[in-house]
Amino acid sequence: MSERLEAQFAFLNEADRLKSVLRATTLVDGSRRENSGEHSWHLALYALILADQAEGRVDISRVIKMLLLHDLVEIDVGDVPIHSAEGKAHASTQTQDAESRAADRIFGLLPADQGPELRALWAEFESAETPDAIFAKSLDRVQPVMANLMSGGGTWIEYNVTAEQLETRVGVKVARGAPRLWDWVKAKTKAYFG
Amino acid sequence: MSERLEAQFAFLNEADRLKSVLRATTLVDGSRRENSGEHSWHLALYALILADQAEGRVDISRVIKMLLLHDLVEIDVGDVPIHSAEGKAHASTQTQDAESRAADRIFGLLPADQGPELRALWAEFESAETPDAIFAKSLDRVQPVMANLMSGGGTWIEYNVTAEQLETRVGVKVARGAPRLWDWVKAKTKAYFG
Repeated sequence: MSERLEAQFAFLNEADRLKSVLRATTLVDGSRRENSGEHSWHLALYALILADQAEGRVDISRVIKMLLLHDLVEIDVGDVPIHSAEGKAHASTQTQDAESRAADRIFGLLPADQGPELRALWAEFESAETPDAIFAKSLDRVQPVMANLMSGGGTWIEYNVTAEQLETRVGVKVARGAPRLWDWVKAKTKAYFG
Repeated sequence: MSERLEAQFAFLNEADRLKSVLRATTLVDGSRRENSGEHSWHLALYALILADQAEGRVDISRVIKMLLLHDLVEIDVGDVPIHSAEGKAHASTQTQDAESRAADRIFGLLPADQGPELRALWAEFESAETPDAIFAKSLDRVQPVMANLMSGGGTWIEYNVTAEQLETRVGVKVARGAPRLWDWVKAKTKAYFG
């Protein structure tokens, strides 16, 4: 019992460090960069509210759990902005290996009956092959689009992003899990990209 | 469809403001105060990991949803530190009325088939009468204790908190929903309070 709680709090205290990992995206009001902890909360709220936007049948409670965990590897690896040079090469074996090692370390802090199951949920998100993971990825991609729209451009300005690049890097992935949502958001981006 | 998404994003964009509401508690590393958005994420993660600490039968997915929403009223009302003078009077009718009006406004942004249900989930948390809400409250109370332990005192120093006050204001409430967890955490606090 005591040993179990020691392991669980080793994980929960380590997870706290995600609040200090900064993303490229700002808050909706543009006042500062968002951190990956509050981003994870916002995404879980997205899932709760936008559940009926999912393509196919998803288990929204499972999607929420996946989103709570999806960025923990950034404690070791950091956030890779999608429109940055590194972001465009994110599928590199090197990055994937580093994230896999981070997952081993972080989920490995948990008791043996919890760590592997939650690590598998993270790996499912990364692979983006199941309906739950595909929808979770769609939300992860669409939330920064809304932040940029609200704050007047955000990372699109910083990285000189064009409408075509947004479609290729972001739109296709949002549309895969939430096609009607992307139609609606894409129409909004026209006001910015013209 | 379009009207529905407009309402859902009015809510999700408004929710972003919770990332700018600061709590008294700091991060585990003591580097800065925690905001209520990242706090909500951390608590949802607490629920996921510590589910088997719940007294009685809880629906952990429902507890997680409750915790994602539990602090949204602070966008209007702010955070009330539990050990502050205001915190000790938190049960005041005036505070409860202000929080209720905030809930009306914020959940009222959502479509009519979502707002009332989620507002009811928030009200259930506040009332702390169901097993799900009692456990959610236990986690909300215990997380700052861990942050204070990790950072070397935190709000206990700021507000001159004694072991007896911690027991009355915090321990009793943690123990109500997670008695074995409080036994374990309380033993840890002895190293601080002596």
